[in-house]
Amino acid sequence: MGVAIPDDVKGMLKGKNFWHLATIGPAGAPQTTPVWAETDGTHVIVNTAKGRAKERNMRAEPRVALSSFDFSNPYGFVEIQGRVVEIIDGQPAEDGIDDLAEKYLGERPYPYRKPGEQRVIFRVEPRAINTWERP
Amino acid sequence: MGVAIPDDVKGMLKGKNFWHLATIGPAGAPQTTPVWAETDGTHVIVNTAKGRAKERNMRAEPRVALSSFDFSNPYGFVEIQGRVVEIIDGQPAEDGIDDLAEKYLGERPYPYRKPGEQRVIFRVEPRAINTWERP
Repeated sequence: MGVAIPDDVKGMLKGKNFWHLATIGPAGAPQTTPVWAETDGTHVIVNTAKGRAKERNMRAEPRVALSSFDFSNPYGFVEIQGRVVEIIDGQPAEDGIDDLAEKYLGERPYPYRKPGEQRVIFRVEPRAINTWERP
Repeated sequence: MGVAIPDDVKGMLKGKNFWHLATIGPAGAPQTTPVWAETDGTHVIVNTAKGRAKERNMRAEPRVALSSFDFSNPYGFVEIQGRVVEIIDGQPAEDGIDDLAEKYLGERPYPYRKPGEQRVIFRVEPRAINTWERP
């Protein structure tokens, strides 16, 4: 059911690009929020904290979308539609946010952890990927 | 029903920031795509072309969300949830994309217009706005 992530999109996911994650709330309205992201080569991986709206939304409705553009080329756009296929909490999720902080900020551990914060990984299987290069 | 746009968010809308627009497709799945945006002080204004998925989505389901961060401060995040309250096509929409091209590219007219392309303005009334400044 999933689609393969093209190499240029893998490169964007491995880079320091910000992604905007759209989820669906309980009343069916969209929410979108900037997120860090990563890939294992097959999935898009995002990491959030328990209790946030996007965490509740993705547990209830696995369909999500992400978009980004490459900072080095503002017209290198990518749009991904996908589905949450795995939710991981505990130590792997705590390690995951430290990995993301190292990638994006060059700092480890993640410096913005709040007391009692519990991290959660959402693994998203892409179902459709569009890239759009401006002339 | 709408909420006022705070001055810092107006500033982001008047600047050259890219926004990511989340819409809901016919099967209820989210779509998100980078867009240019503007404000009249009360609404968020986006401009797309007839026939694109987001245009069809917004005509069928007025609930949308937008997020951005200020390029000059990657941790100046904003999230807007809103509702399409007006759809305008014809000359005002053609002029609108030229205005956006002038703002974002410093070029007028919009240089990427395709033959036969018809532009459409969507005027979005914000219902909730969250800003998030990193420490």
